[in-house]
Amino acid sequence: MQSCAKSWGILFAKSVNSHAPCRHIPGQSRFFGKLQTRIQNRNAFVTVRGLRMSAVCASSRQIDRILPRHDDFAERHIGPGEREKREMLDVLGLQSIAQLIEDTVPESIRIQRSMKMDDPLCENQVLEHLQKIASKNKVWRSYIGMGYYNCSVPPVIQRNLLENSGWVTQYTPYQPEVAQGRLESLLNYQTMICDITGMAVANASLLDEATAAAEAMQLCHSYIGVKTVLKLPHEMDFSGKDVSGVLFQYPDTDGRVEDFTALVDRAHKGGALACCATDLLALCVLRPPGEFGVDIALGSSQRFGVPLCYGGPHAAFFSVKENLVRMMPGRMVGVTRDAAGKEVYRLALQTREQHIRRDKATSNICTAQALLANMAAMFGVYHGPQGLKHIAERTHNAALILAEGLKRAGHRLHSEMFFDTLKVGCSVAAKDILERAVQREINLRVYSEGVLGVSLDETVTERDLDDLLWVFGCESSAELIAEKMGERVKGIMGSPFKRTSKYLVHTVFNSYHSETNIVRYMKRLENKDISLVHSMIPLPITWKEFANLHPFCPLDQAEGYQQLFRQLEKDLCEVTGYDKISFQPNSGAQGEYAGLAAIKAYLNSKGEAHRTVCLIPKSAHGTNPASAQMAGMKVQVVEVDKDGNIDMANLKALVDKHKANLAAMMITYPSTFGVFEESIDDVCNLIHQNGGQVYLDGANMNAQMMGAKGLVHATEVAILNANYMAKRLESHYKILFKGFCAHEFILDVRPFKKSANIEAVDVAKRLQDYGTLMIEPTESEDKAEMDRFCDSLMGIRQEIADIEEGRMDARINPLKMAPHSLASITSSTWDRPYSREYAAFPLPFVRPETKFWPSISRIDDIYGDQHLVCTCPPMDVYESPYEEKRASS
Amino acid sequence: MQSCAKSWGILFAKSVNSHAPCRHIPGQSRFFGKLQTRIQNRNAFVTVRGLRMSAVCASSRQIDRILPRHDDFAERHIGPGEREKREMLDVLGLQSIAQLIEDTVPESIRIQRSMKMDDPLCENQVLEHLQKIASKNKVWRSYIGMGYYNCSVPPVIQRNLLENSGWVTQYTPYQPEVAQGRLESLLNYQTMICDITGMAVANASLLDEATAAAEAMQLCHSYIGVKTVLKLPHEMDFSGKDVSGVLFQYPDTDGRVEDFTALVDRAHKGGALACCATDLLALCVLRPPGEFGVDIALGSSQRFGVPLCYGGPHAAFFSVKENLVRMMPGRMVGVTRDAAGKEVYRLALQTREQHIRRDKATSNICTAQALLANMAAMFGVYHGPQGLKHIAERTHNAALILAEGLKRAGHRLHSEMFFDTLKVGCSVAAKDILERAVQREINLRVYSEGVLGVSLDETVTERDLDDLLWVFGCESSAELIAEKMGERVKGIMGSPFKRTSKYLVHTVFNSYHSETNIVRYMKRLENKDISLVHSMIPLPITWKEFANLHPFCPLDQAEGYQQLFRQLEKDLCEVTGYDKISFQPNSGAQGEYAGLAAIKAYLNSKGEAHRTVCLIPKSAHGTNPASAQMAGMKVQVVEVDKDGNIDMANLKALVDKHKANLAAMMITYPSTFGVFEESIDDVCNLIHQNGGQVYLDGANMNAQMMGAKGLVHATEVAILNANYMAKRLESHYKILFKGFCAHEFILDVRPFKKSANIEAVDVAKRLQDYGTLMIEPTESEDKAEMDRFCDSLMGIRQEIADIEEGRMDARINPLKMAPHSLASITSSTWDRPYSREYAAFPLPFVRPETKFWPSISRIDDIYGDQHLVCTCPPMDVYESPYEEKRASS
Repeated sequence: MQSCAKSWGILFAKSVNSHAPCRHIPGQSRFFGKLQTRIQNRNAFVTVRGLRMSAVCASSRQIDRILPRHDDFAERHIGPGEREKREMLDVLGLQSIAQLIEDTVPESIRIQRSMKMDDPLCENQVLEHLQKIASKNKVWRSYIGMGYYNCSVPPVIQRNLLENSGWVTQYTPYQPEVAQGRLESLLNYQTMICDITGMAVANASLLDEATAAAEAMQLCHSYIGVKTVLKLPHEMDFSGKDVSGVLFQYPDTDGRVEDFTALVDRAHKGGALACCATDLLALCVLRPPGEFGVDIALGSSQRFGVPLCYGGPHAAFFSVKENLVRMMPGRMVGVTRDAAGKEVYRLALQTREQHIRRDKATSNICTAQALLANMAAMFGVYHGPQGLKHIAERTHNAALILAEGLKRAGHRLHSEMFFDTLKVGCSVAAKDILERAVQREINLRVYSEGVLGVSLDETVTERDLDDLLWVFGCESSAELIAEKMGERVKGIMGSPFKRTSKYLVHTVFNSYHSETNIVRYMKRLENKDISLVHSMIPLPITWKEFANLHPFCPLDQAEGYQQLFRQLEKDLCEVTGYDKISFQPNSGAQGEYAGLAAIKAYLNSKGEAHRTVCLIPKSAHGTNPASAQMAGMKVQVVEVDKDGNIDMANLKALVDKHKANLAAMMITYPSTFGVFEESIDDVCNLIHQNGGQVYLDGANMNAQMMGAKGLVHATEVAILNANYMAKRLESHYKILFKGFCAHEFILDVRPFKKSANIEAVDVAKRLQDYGTLMIEPTESEDKAEMDRFCDSLMGIRQEIADIEEGRMDARINPLKMAPHSLASITSSTWDRPYSREYAAFPLPFVRPETKFWPSISRIDDIYGDQHLVCTCPPMDVYESPYEEKRASS
Repeated sequence: MQSCAKSWGILFAKSVNSHAPCRHIPGQSRFFGKLQTRIQNRNAFVTVRGLRMSAVCASSRQIDRILPRHDDFAERHIGPGEREKREMLDVLGLQSIAQLIEDTVPESIRIQRSMKMDDPLCENQVLEHLQKIASKNKVWRSYIGMGYYNCSVPPVIQRNLLENSGWVTQYTPYQPEVAQGRLESLLNYQTMICDITGMAVANASLLDEATAAAEAMQLCHSYIGVKTVLKLPHEMDFSGKDVSGVLFQYPDTDGRVEDFTALVDRAHKGGALACCATDLLALCVLRPPGEFGVDIALGSSQRFGVPLCYGGPHAAFFSVKENLVRMMPGRMVGVTRDAAGKEVYRLALQTREQHIRRDKATSNICTAQALLANMAAMFGVYHGPQGLKHIAERTHNAALILAEGLKRAGHRLHSEMFFDTLKVGCSVAAKDILERAVQREINLRVYSEGVLGVSLDETVTERDLDDLLWVFGCESSAELIAEKMGERVKGIMGSPFKRTSKYLVHTVFNSYHSETNIVRYMKRLENKDISLVHSMIPLPITWKEFANLHPFCPLDQAEGYQQLFRQLEKDLCEVTGYDKISFQPNSGAQGEYAGLAAIKAYLNSKGEAHRTVCLIPKSAHGTNPASAQMAGMKVQVVEVDKDGNIDMANLKALVDKHKANLAAMMITYPSTFGVFEESIDDVCNLIHQNGGQVYLDGANMNAQMMGAKGLVHATEVAILNANYMAKRLESHYKILFKGFCAHEFILDVRPFKKSANIEAVDVAKRLQDYGTLMIEPTESEDKAEMDRFCDSLMGIRQEIADIEEGRMDARINPLKMAPHSLASITSSTWDRPYSREYAAFPLPFVRPETKFWPSISRIDDIYGDQHLVCTCPPMDVYESPYEEKRASS
């Protein structure tokens, strides 16, 4: 481990959930994230068996000619058809795609072997196959708890949000003018978290609870390298002032509800921060951590309407006191104003983020679990405060009835104050209880011999309680127990732990409790956002056999999942040429961290702990430097040459300088400049010879790896598309690193700053008026779409020329005023030196009946960061800007 | 049967499919239509077990108090909450809902008994329950044919269309300005049908193939009462000129492809029309009926991407020669222009329809299977002509391979010229073949002893063929048979039946073959249409256990369906108080027809065939008179009094006049004027005493029936909502039939014609600018929505007053110019005497960021009917109206 100047300790209270990153079951939480991404990218088939639908292949069998595969003739997910491909090649002055590939991908890095993969399946076959796999999972009732709880996913939210491509999108709301819908929903999420935890500010979620816990610790100490000490609360000694933070859980993993007020006070007096891992549903009836001084509250929002899915993906929440807001990791939505003075939403305090700070960033977190956070937020919106309280009380009452029954049957409870979880010392052999549980298809938590755990949740019915009572050998029924308990049933509600403060009082949580209203609300938000809508997602994760599996259920209930993991591992190893794969990382950034941590551990195991230097070229992904720092490495930047390749001379010099301490080099391949490094072999050899390891960021693996037929074709088309666009644009814009590119390329707009006072942001905002966003021309875009994008950029170039040559005002012009909202275009007042049509319909294909309108004018980021508001603003800002002018108009 | 002046015959060629209406298996095709409707109306629970989520009920059990039903606290589908209900009662000056009901629903017609229904289930429980039921259906491979074929539903269409509430809506596009999307899709459907059948015009679909066949016959003779004669084609004698029409099938139900050219010629010479029931997929490789003189071509479009669903709902197509267009039944989309001169779509020739012609109408068809027609259209758009031809050839080739194998195994084929269906004279015992079929879970068609049928479809794979060959005792494999057939495999493609003409050459069928493109196209259309989006539909019909069942599969494979039918029958009988129910009718109009046909048959069976007079009050549904005529009855209109009740004096007089020939009386209850007839008992007695039967149209059964708790509450709220709205509007508009109303009421706008030259259509179009449509204030609307609707109507009333009082121009005003499209509002040119804001944002809640825009200006119906175009217009009309004006602007 990294040594650090200040000797300090950090501790977990004894019964923290098993959330340490390394103890996750490999792959489970990551898996469906991947599957989802891939299905969205039309690579669904990689994850299942082989590839996507492939091109017609010449078969030697007569039957394949007269009875071809059902959907072979149509390469559904590949945009351009044969004619279009021909046209694009003509523009490039090439005879064939083969010629393009030869000119683009260095011979030295092309794979010669062919890949071993199963035959491709068409989409219907994939779904059928997945159904067979799903049926191998067994859906038992799981009362295991440990941070994962069954819940009742409102079908209205499942259908309109989780299964709706308008919400399920990879697009990051960097362009808030066309993302107000999801920003509003994430703001609801933040407001909900703040309200329920009693904290001042929350972020828009983190990847998982483990990450949230680690980030809390990191926040406490400002950098990683933590010494973890596990102590009971009363054993904690803060007097040496050498403790950065304390993390405890409330209610804890055994279900106990404990008073941590004194501990928090002692921590504060000792100069440490207090972090509380907690449970949103419990806090609906329980005094929240914000009310006893906690500095950071975190946890999983899974049980707010997100399926178990064998462990993930779920959104973690993270909330802090006011004074910590600028140290908070992750994305945060904030309120600001737009050019028209309206209150609007955007990502706040982005200057903290890695994509801006780059090698100065200390956290590599750039992703939120936006979809899952939005589901949880809508769960809160749909149920409202009364509904959530009802669910919490009901769950708690079920636990009280069960506890009473267990006691009557002679069992011993480890705690008398609990919310939904009981740790039970059994009065009979636990083996017998577990056997009866198997008979009723029930999973319990198994501690040591003689001790079992039961965690209830909102789905528990009277019948479930009766089954549990029977399993534990209680002869009474839930009905009879409830009858005899009478009005004594108090639990938390009759204790000092009872929550007295209000929450979710904002209108948004008190308006959409009927199905009609919540559907309309979700639609309203959805329609404010531009959506790539590449294709709908036949989400297998919503099938109950995938959705309702607890991550810690016995392995033999998860055979379907295991089969998927094995198949995916096999295929990915074949594609990458590696021997083993870990599904552990929950995001690209986590992958980087995990990779570097593995390298560091490997070097340490060889006694080379002094190796800490990590070389990172300028062309690498923005998260790389932050990940290196988190893994305890020192970043050294490597220059690139004018073609975007790694500057070998500079690299050699740096390796020579640092060889004694060289740990690793990180390469994004192909690079973010869209270049295949021809020198990749030399680079790897150089690093290896000097005792380092190479980390390769394969974020664009599609565009690598020339293997099985379908993949090859997709890759070829992606490369063709990129080069076609570059060719069309090259006489209008300066393109960095010319020559044939891989899958992306960069336009240089820097000269326009001087010539027309136009910056990249103006071009990006003006593109919104043209109804298009900066996209990677992957294989799924067809030629018409690419032409529209090129036409837009050429139109914008002409507008810049108009400014440069004085035909257009340098200050009030469509670029500087972009984007143009519907409100501004339809206003009676129009005092611009250009027309409404010019502003809103700059090219013939931008038409009133199909145009996507930015819902607001240009965002004012600086104002928002200066006046930070990260929860729902009061209702008056929702008032219409229009006066009611009748007759007089 | 009805006697008729001209003695005529109509005949089915011997092997027409079993599509005669009465031979449908009761309920199957109707069932999911019902289920769908009900789920959409949030009545899903009626169809399954009992009701929807009910109000919390006071239980005597303690456990129900501390562990209430999970979702009982929230009456999700009922819009107004307690506070809102209180506010509405205050406006009405009432103390309680009970008081409202007492004042609204006559004591005499309130049911006193309580209804016997199972306990309500919450939505998740319903889905779970349905899954259990679904698992009782067995999904075997069905090669039965007879008009129903398995097909490969493109997941992209299933998800974005069938399961998308933006498309699945009950709304009829009477307001074309806000329905251009679905109108365009239906126009695609019509174009596809015309192209594939080779006919001149097609309608937007009919309810099912049986209806289409009956309507064809009716068109031939102009009224019902057909004598059906079944003859072989060569036996037909047209020389007597006493035949109205001939209907034959091509290919026929046994699979045979026959040349009907001579028959069609003979029919024409004999003064008869030729009708052809046909198959869309076959016609992709087969000479179409339009090319050998057929007058009417019809059939089912199910196999174009619509699941079997045990028989329906499916869309029937119906296409005719140019000269028959004005006699064609059903809805038809046509091209016209809007007020801005743009080519746009709307329902054409509506003057033919019953809702306008009312008692003069002779067809009661007012419904198309729009959703299923749209699915079929998108199937055509997605596959395009090459794709469809590929699918047809592939299916045909599979049949050729199978045929070859069967012949080698010694079986005899009934025809050598077939498309996908083989009728097989077995060389071994059929029993043995069927036993082997069971082993492989395959269903075959069973004719008489020793004769079996096999119908293949696009889903058939090599493995399926191998299984079929094994079942029929052929020792060879599909691969080997194909190998030996070599290039001899010709079939239709090497015969004079081969289709040589092109089809689907329009751009729309050649542009959206990639997933990305079709999703964007569907989204573009969807976004042009206003959608009620009441709630998303967790459509069980897309579950494979419901979707993939052939209607003629053995009953023991359909136990899940049978259970649903039984439960639904039980519940509906309980609700209605009747003894038996028929699920036969496929629409409300068919229900009327079936009911009257049953009454007629009953009277005939009693020897009272002379009873033909049907009394229909003015307050009845518009379809009633047409249905009566179709059932062979004579319509006699009954007056209503000023309160909307049946005029008892008039009724008594009419009964007295017609008592000898009185057959029936039709009553819509509550009436379309929203009135509960207090005299309903008296009316029924009067009719019964005079030998007639009463047909009750229960289209608003919800608002009847005071039974089980949940239903009662929903009904109460619906009545409250309607009365609240009536109260708010009564000082602004004249309301017909005052006093407390049932579920709907009527505003009288006729006086404005004189005072301001404003008609109902102007109000309806102006409501589009306010972003709302005329709605029934059912229980699912909340108070805010109703208030917005009332505010809109009051705003419009003020605008009318402005015209009346001279503040607004009588010709160019927002009502006459409504609706205002985005194109008109954003245009540089604005020369109206009112502002853009006044036009587009007339009230504060109509806001730029949420407004739904009519995509076109007001439609010109007359122009369209005078220049009838019912297929996709050429591409140039899609050009943008905007010139490319650069720099100059």
